[in-house]
Amino acid sequence: MDAIDVIVTKRDGRELSAEQIDWVIDAYTRGVVADEQMSALAMAILLNGMNRREIAEWTQAMIRSGSRMDWSSLPGPTTDKHSTGGVGDKITLPLAPLVAACGGYVPQLSGRGLGHTGGTLDKLESIPGWQASLSNDGMLDVLGKAGAVVCAANDGLAPADKKLYALRDVTGTVEAIPLIASSIMSKKIAEGTGALVLDVKVGSGAFMKNVEQARELATTMVELGTDAGVNTVALLTAMDRPLGRAVGNALEVTESVEVLAGGGPADVVELTVRLAREMLQAAGLSGGTSGGKDPERALADGSAMDAWRRMITAQGGDPDALLPRAAETMEITVPSSGVLSRLDAYGVGLAAWRLGAGRERKEDPVSFGAGIVLHAKPGDLVREGQPLMTLHADETSRFERALAALEGAYSVGETADPDLLPLVIDRVTA
Amino acid sequence: MDAIDVIVTKRDGRELSAEQIDWVIDAYTRGVVADEQMSALAMAILLNGMNRREIAEWTQAMIRSGSRMDWSSLPGPTTDKHSTGGVGDKITLPLAPLVAACGGYVPQLSGRGLGHTGGTLDKLESIPGWQASLSNDGMLDVLGKAGAVVCAANDGLAPADKKLYALRDVTGTVEAIPLIASSIMSKKIAEGTGALVLDVKVGSGAFMKNVEQARELATTMVELGTDAGVNTVALLTAMDRPLGRAVGNALEVTESVEVLAGGGPADVVELTVRLAREMLQAAGLSGGTSGGKDPERALADGSAMDAWRRMITAQGGDPDALLPRAAETMEITVPSSGVLSRLDAYGVGLAAWRLGAGRERKEDPVSFGAGIVLHAKPGDLVREGQPLMTLHADETSRFERALAALEGAYSVGETADPDLLPLVIDRVTA
Repeated sequence: MDAIDVIVTKRDGRELSAEQIDWVIDAYTRGVVADEQMSALAMAILLNGMNRREIAEWTQAMIRSGSRMDWSSLPGPTTDKHSTGGVGDKITLPLAPLVAACGGYVPQLSGRGLGHTGGTLDKLESIPGWQASLSNDGMLDVLGKAGAVVCAANDGLAPADKKLYALRDVTGTVEAIPLIASSIMSKKIAEGTGALVLDVKVGSGAFMKNVEQARELATTMVELGTDAGVNTVALLTAMDRPLGRAVGNALEVTESVEVLAGGGPADVVELTVRLAREMLQAAGLSGGTSGGKDPERALADGSAMDAWRRMITAQGGDPDALLPRAAETMEITVPSSGVLSRLDAYGVGLAAWRLGAGRERKEDPVSFGAGIVLHAKPGDLVREGQPLMTLHADETSRFERALAALEGAYSVGETADPDLLPLVIDRVTA
Repeated sequence: MDAIDVIVTKRDGRELSAEQIDWVIDAYTRGVVADEQMSALAMAILLNGMNRREIAEWTQAMIRSGSRMDWSSLPGPTTDKHSTGGVGDKITLPLAPLVAACGGYVPQLSGRGLGHTGGTLDKLESIPGWQASLSNDGMLDVLGKAGAVVCAANDGLAPADKKLYALRDVTGTVEAIPLIASSIMSKKIAEGTGALVLDVKVGSGAFMKNVEQARELATTMVELGTDAGVNTVALLTAMDRPLGRAVGNALEVTESVEVLAGGGPADVVELTVRLAREMLQAAGLSGGTSGGKDPERALADGSAMDAWRRMITAQGGDPDALLPRAAETMEITVPSSGVLSRLDAYGVGLAAWRLGAGRERKEDPVSFGAGIVLHAKPGDLVREGQPLMTLHADETSRFERALAALEGAYSVGETADPDLLPLVIDRVTA
């Protein structure tokens, strides 16, 4: 077997055998298959596709390239969530402790942001003292104390995926559903969770721009999880406008704490509760019936907030510390009275990125304080001159390019845009 | 502009702009675009194609990546031939001096073999003392003395193509007609020839397995040459069986000298004369009418042989030296009496390669003496027990794998295979 044989098979539109897939993933991980060969294969996969069997074998080969975690020593079931990423998507922050407060164990490996969508680890790192890196024993320790842990994946987990993801990022081969699905699911399956809820975002601020693509990705991932023995379900949710009112690292932590305190924006609360119910149900802990607590009650009685404080403290963070704030702010006002008909997620995400909330290259730092606070959401009545959003940045020089990103990103009309997506668009199960 | 932008354009089936093509070829040559990015682009081009404008601009960008040769100081027109490669294709050896003897100047840059087809330079290097490397002044000197030169391209000629060709070779992206055509034509246009005849081989022993593919490649190359001001014509010729009776480096030199002496196998003579007439006509030296000599006369009167001797001598070779011979031979006999209906070019080429005539890796040496001499060609009457072919190798251990390659490669029947291709299948002009 050699790399050219595998590439030519897929290039010519034929199915890859299990042997070819095992060999190429293993050989790529060991450096026997070169980057330029793998990128040619990735492009052939992007253009010619893979069927369900090929994607499942590809995913399993990536899992086998590293170690697989085991949480069987915990006294309860594990359940996790993965979002494909969006603007203002801080849901993991309130969700993980909420599910812990209801009886689930959440062993979430998460990532940093690249591009216009933020990374969960970047957000949590804005809390003074909080550490993203934990050993497996460290994860077990935090899970035992708080019922939830959110930390960085170590290098031993699906190393083939890590290498392939970096390659796809620079070779125009990110947008291949088989590769996106196997990348996400290889990490989640290797993470060892027993149940998984996928939040597949749809819209301008998401990776998937339309419902059809998103449903294909969701279906592929649900199949992969199911085939691997993980109880998997997916929701398609709206990302045509930002989620919540805060976009940016510390700004989103603040909003998450508001939700845990029983307040917060309606859409964030609704999606957090919905995802918590899905996670508990997938883990066999449906509200009340099998000992699990109802998420709305856990928000109201403070037990979710208690779990959050334990989780942050167990990872070295101070839940009471003041969060970093950007030095400079700038207010954008409503241009004319009416209904805010549209507020484009991509435009807002790009502006927040340019303000410093995101990074341009992997090695760049993020600004914890930078970002945007929205004072109105689509459908809200607004009055000319009223604040529409506040930009936060460490230097005033950042504002100009952020304003350029926001040009045309919002409009005021007589009614809300009838094409706005419902918050939860669809549910995909095996 | 960045590499991902260019890759994504072609990946999504859109046309590359002139700016994108110029930028990506230049940046790849300078190492700014990485191998893994170029291989992803090459796969996207293979699967989504390029139109005539894109191919022409891609070719011109590769030419501009290096220097372009100039033969305007010569007293006559330049004309060259390029073959896409086949088994037993030694035509350049008698053809270049033959055209020189008829009044043309042949500045041929040639290559070494990789795979089952031999390389012209490997064949000539079997002549003791002969040197493939010449400076531009050295080429001009040989052209002045002999009217023809066959040598290696120096590194300054289309360096982008050199780099891209090596990359395509290991990434399953060789078989893209736009890339094959631009690779061949960038070198031939940069070589500075005024006229060009393309010999596009068709059949099992050739790169193009069927007439349709070959015609597409020929048409693309004729268009590229014409657009670049080179008077270009192509012949599609048969490569379903070997050309001539000798396959292997020194064995093919011997056969070439037989042709120059007025003998040699009928198919080699016919194709050599036909290509010579095409080259002379393309250069404005049609037989007799504009001072050019007729190729058949130049073979008969010894003037082609004189040009050969001058050409070999001018490059340090001894035209009278004994050529290397392999130490071991093995005879294959005819299995039953009848007509040799089929003798597969690929099987014979693969066997010769395994006998040592070709190289497996670029850095391997070739055996000058190794190869195969055929004692019958398709259509010949053969008698059981009569010699069919003789294998030549430096070690007897080579014979087993060569015999395996020949299994099923020939058959004896009542008539010749009616599907045998005519020697010259078609002619493609602008």
